Amino acid sequence: MTTEFLIEQIHKKKSFLCVGLDVDLNKIPKHLLTEEDPIFEFNKAIIDATHHLAVAYKPNIAFFEAYGLKGWQALEKTINYLNEKYPEVFTIADAKRGDIGNTSKMYAKAFLEDLGFDSITVAPYMGKDSVEPFLSFKDKHTILLALTSNEGAFDFQTQKVDGVELYKKVLETSKNWNHSEQLMYVVGATKAEYLKEIRNIIPKSFLLVPGVGAQGGSLSEVCKYGMTEHVGLLINSSRGIIYASQKENFAQAAAEKALELQQEMAAILAAN
Amino acid sequence: MTTEFLIEQIHKKKSFLCVGLDVDLNKIPKHLLTEEDPIFEFNKAIIDATHHLAVAYKPNIAFFEAYGLKGWQALEKTINYLNEKYPEVFTIADAKRGDIGNTSKMYAKAFLEDLGFDSITVAPYMGKDSVEPFLSFKDKHTILLALTSNEGAFDFQTQKVDGVELYKKVLETSKNWNHSEQLMYVVGATKAEYLKEIRNIIPKSFLLVPGVGAQGGSLSEVCKYGMTEHVGLLINSSRGIIYASQKENFAQAAAEKALELQQEMAAILAAN
Repeated sequence: MTTEFLIEQIHKKKSFLCVGLDVDLNKIPKHLLTEEDPIFEFNKAIIDATHHLAVAYKPNIAFFEAYGLKGWQALEKTINYLNEKYPEVFTIADAKRGDIGNTSKMYAKAFLEDLGFDSITVAPYMGKDSVEPFLSFKDKHTILLALTSNEGAFDFQTQKVDGVELYKKVLETSKNWNHSEQLMYVVGATKAEYLKEIRNIIPKSFLLVPGVGAQGGSLSEVCKYGMTEHVGLLINSSRGIIYASQKENFAQAAAEKALELQQEMAAILAAN
Repeated sequence: MTTEFLIEQIHKKKSFLCVGLDVDLNKIPKHLLTEEDPIFEFNKAIIDATHHLAVAYKPNIAFFEAYGLKGWQALEKTINYLNEKYPEVFTIADAKRGDIGNTSKMYAKAFLEDLGFDSITVAPYMGKDSVEPFLSFKDKHTILLALTSNEGAFDFQTQKVDGVELYKKVLETSKNWNHSEQLMYVVGATKAEYLKEIRNIIPKSFLLVPGVGAQGGSLSEVCKYGMTEHVGLLINSSRGIIYASQKENFAQAAAEKALELQQEMAAILAAN
């Protein structure tokens, strides 16, 4: 998917919401557990109920791998369902991969080509040649970890490298990589005040912003400092939406939570 | 597996060799492609031919994920085969994972508990709470990326944070994490001269050392600077061993390459 198409969708749906699919069998409604593929059935119901309110879906790969073969099968079914029924949504493999070149190439092939995701999250620690293999796929996007939403972000990401925080160094350096126009970045909503300076370094890039909701980040703060002329934000909510209810009405409850966020987003878009 | 048992095995086999299983269907002998599970058949043959020469095996998870469901199935069969037939070998899931706490916990469960690997490689960028979930499994090991063997290592890992290279900051900081005695570290053989200073920070920890062979690192240099009283090294070779021949005799050829390395290792152990 091109960035232009994504921006069009944002304006059409008046939403820059990404729904995170972190499916834990201990948290989904009990009645689904008798289905042949409870994870897929859960995802399908959530997607059907929210697709008009969200522009992106982000399966969290760990939650699929935790169920082995069945999990991988549910992942394939989920991405196929999204690509076939809702080709207008932007899909993110939240995988946080990154390895030496020939290995990154295999991960890139798996997620961007075979599974057909539009994008994948990647960790920057191993540098340029660990990230560029992901960037070589046309109209696909690599979402590089910059400043994450967790407490551990302060261990290394905010440490100063030659007077500049490591996450800023990651932003600066990655701009020089091949096909860097296909880069997006992860910046946690729990650190919204950092967005002003981040926008000085990458004024136009899309940011995937986790941490609104369950982790405590504020949507209005993120938009205040992070929004660009072409929006430039995908705000992720996982647990706050998908586990809104554990009863039979879970999909309806998820849609209500998604609607709340979409309405806030529509108001922000109208005001800008 | 306990570290003590691993050390015992090293002395018993006179080897600290780890065989990396990076199985690419384009590189394995053609006659295997007609098998129902060519990846597993290849791994099985390599393992059977080299198990007396190696103390560890390291399936590279990317190379399994690249084949989707079939790849995951081959991964399960490979780790089950190792755990059942050769329980004395140390197994490494080369996955380079790392995410916020609840997600890292899912990856840890998948690889250390369900698949039953002895260890997993983890990226440090997201800090303490992204790594500790892996460290909470008894007698399991977390192999943290410190200084990798690729060119991109110079992008961030060797940059100075408050006067100290980032990879040293990672070593120092991680020593304070819960269950840090279960940490090992990745240090590339292509940067053997860095090992002296690394040993000042982590005098006893085991290092997983990729990059000998195909990537150009030297075994004797690595041992000169990196070996401890209890060896403290696992030297990985992937392509140099498993693709020694693409003919029917591939397993025999792999064993010959493994034997060469094992003999060098036996000589080094005898000299120390």
